Amino acid sequence: MPAKAIIISIGDEILYGQTLDTNSHWISGELDNLGVRVLKKVTISDARETILYNLQEAEKNADIVLITGGLGPTSDDLTKPCLAEYFGTQLVRNEEAFANIKAIFEKAGWEMNESNEQQADLPANCTAIKNPIGTASGMWFDSNDKVIVSMPGVPFEMKHMMKETVLPRLKKQFVEDGIYHRMIRTIGIGESKLAEIIKDWENKLPEEIKLAYLPTLGAVKLRLTTDNDSAQTKKQIQNLIDQVLPLIEKYVYGFDDEEVPEAIGRILREKSQTLAIAESCTGGYLSHVVTSVPGSSGWFRGSMIPYSNDLKRDLLAVDQKILDAEGAVSEAVVLALAENIRKSLKADVGISVSGIAGPDGGSEEKPVGTVWIGYSDKNKSVAKKFRFIRNREINIKYSAIAALNMIRINLDKD
Amino acid sequence: MPAKAIIISIGDEILYGQTLDTNSHWISGELDNLGVRVLKKVTISDARETILYNLQEAEKNADIVLITGGLGPTSDDLTKPCLAEYFGTQLVRNEEAFANIKAIFEKAGWEMNESNEQQADLPANCTAIKNPIGTASGMWFDSNDKVIVSMPGVPFEMKHMMKETVLPRLKKQFVEDGIYHRMIRTIGIGESKLAEIIKDWENKLPEEIKLAYLPTLGAVKLRLTTDNDSAQTKKQIQNLIDQVLPLIEKYVYGFDDEEVPEAIGRILREKSQTLAIAESCTGGYLSHVVTSVPGSSGWFRGSMIPYSNDLKRDLLAVDQKILDAEGAVSEAVVLALAENIRKSLKADVGISVSGIAGPDGGSEEKPVGTVWIGYSDKNKSVAKKFRFIRNREINIKYSAIAALNMIRINLDKD
Repeated sequence: MPAKAIIISIGDEILYGQTLDTNSHWISGELDNLGVRVLKKVTISDARETILYNLQEAEKNADIVLITGGLGPTSDDLTKPCLAEYFGTQLVRNEEAFANIKAIFEKAGWEMNESNEQQADLPANCTAIKNPIGTASGMWFDSNDKVIVSMPGVPFEMKHMMKETVLPRLKKQFVEDGIYHRMIRTIGIGESKLAEIIKDWENKLPEEIKLAYLPTLGAVKLRLTTDNDSAQTKKQIQNLIDQVLPLIEKYVYGFDDEEVPEAIGRILREKSQTLAIAESCTGGYLSHVVTSVPGSSGWFRGSMIPYSNDLKRDLLAVDQKILDAEGAVSEAVVLALAENIRKSLKADVGISVSGIAGPDGGSEEKPVGTVWIGYSDKNKSVAKKFRFIRNREINIKYSAIAALNMIRINLDKD
Repeated sequence: MPAKAIIISIGDEILYGQTLDTNSHWISGELDNLGVRVLKKVTISDARETILYNLQEAEKNADIVLITGGLGPTSDDLTKPCLAEYFGTQLVRNEEAFANIKAIFEKAGWEMNESNEQQADLPANCTAIKNPIGTASGMWFDSNDKVIVSMPGVPFEMKHMMKETVLPRLKKQFVEDGIYHRMIRTIGIGESKLAEIIKDWENKLPEEIKLAYLPTLGAVKLRLTTDNDSAQTKKQIQNLIDQVLPLIEKYVYGFDDEEVPEAIGRILREKSQTLAIAESCTGGYLSHVVTSVPGSSGWFRGSMIPYSNDLKRDLLAVDQKILDAEGAVSEAVVLALAENIRKSLKADVGISVSGIAGPDGGSEEKPVGTVWIGYSDKNKSVAKKFRFIRNREINIKYSAIAALNMIRINLDKD
């Protein structure tokens, strides 16, 4: 059985929707990697009773309790006195923490006041966790074979403590077997259709191996999980993947951590191909997704966004007659756009998107959600029509994923 | 006493750090606006005992329990059977939900299978909440003067239900006097500087009117809140706004619900000006933000994204000598880009962005986060240098907001 953890985030600014909590997201990913099972994540207010109640609750149910937030120098930061009360002890001056705070203030040329000094007062029963980049010390408590850790809410301070101190110590103390995940990543098929195709395989999965369908926009991840990471289990899971793969091969774009844009970048890089984009209804979103991939400057040339129709003609040489006859959302136009952007930006592959993202602009013949995507390389030009049925924001995201998938499908064929 | 709410997010993908939970963040902000106090946010696994235990726990402590996730068509989605078990009832076919699912499948031209049909089976004691944009119905449960609501984890489906059904009903049932908010929206000034400027005004605010600073990327909202929405209070708050406005006028871009891109669109529309963009380091994000504004096709011409430097020269006529002497991230280059994009796309205003978003590409002279933004209209061309200090993703977002603010500042002057 893997060790169990509960993460507690303390802070009104998170609770009231002003600050997006990315700490617990990052922590749970790290614990998952370590093979610790996260049971629960809780966000609570800076209030004494609430903190005490949730500490008790968490220690009862988990082996590891990780707390972030509430360690600032002001009076609304209550984590430290609550921890002292919880363990029936007092806050005492920690000389090492004090020296650290003093050094930080000296380096910055600031003057310390009483509330800064008090940041070095810690519950008597804790081991201080060094914070070389901030004034709030971390705290490690051993309590009846369980561990409670308190860290600052400032993300980079928390991450530093986790990496340098907390994760290595947790690993040593709690991780025997570890959790093991594998992920098969698919695109261009819905969750329920996928489930139908692999039903027989799924029904025969061993009990100790769990399958989860994780759908995101236009893509579904299949995750296989077990509670141990022995070489034998890893081999067993690889065998299961090899069994299912032939059934769904044309939908699989990658494995494990690789997202769609990263996979497309990898494919382009592997084939030494460069990309140029002409996007209309997606309005820059496709280029944004592409340029979010680390190293994209190695294979991405650039884009044009001819939002007005006259720019499709003037910048990208789409024939006015075609525009008049077929309209901007048409096979002929995306084919011309894909080929012309490829040539004018001196790329190997051109991708074009023209559609009606909504909410306005639809007609009976071309309803909202109609999107044409064009692909062009030196050997061929192809286009495909899609029909998305969500709101504008989501139609744009679906279009971008579909455009990336057009690259995968057509480049793979060459 | 305000009504109290607990938010429960169900899903292993959130718990294990694969998906960042933005739902509970958005929900807690909306509840806060409504005047409902969020007590706690909990993320738990798709596991029967856990779901039942946390439902009980939440109903005990709060008036309102909002649940997201676990409503998909596959076997690992347990929220519905757990709710039925919790209320001691059965899942029964809901005809309205069934008709909705059927319509979605018909519209898309897909075939329904059994698991799709079962999405219309809901606990007998709930009121279905319509989901016109997805197949998972929402559920509203009345339970001993308390309310439990279950919604899909897909953010736009959940948001749609919240806006159309849940928030209005919660308001009616739990919010007595009505909270009244006004928001002054500022940009280009930090929270602490803003606080310094308006200190005297803030200190004189009547006790029943509360001021909150709500900082987001590059912008700070000032929110005035009272516990009643009488005509007199509204007038009183308008007077307070009129008092503080002269102090901070140059930072104020709008009021209440208007976000920065909407405000820029309004200003361009009011002045009958059109916009063209040349963006490099932001890689399409700025154009995406602009085209996300409803009606942007009325004033947005289009963009070029010359990601490679040779395209800055070939597409946008930036002199190779300038590129060689000053580098792509320079005042001279963004001035040329802004002017040339304006002319070649036949727009009234040209905006350009060139910078080093990171993580690589920085130097001592131009460290990561250095961004030049250019503005050009028929009367003038100006450029400004920014230095952002976050990671790539955040630097790109800051750059886009700063570029939009360049339009506001320079257009307003004309």
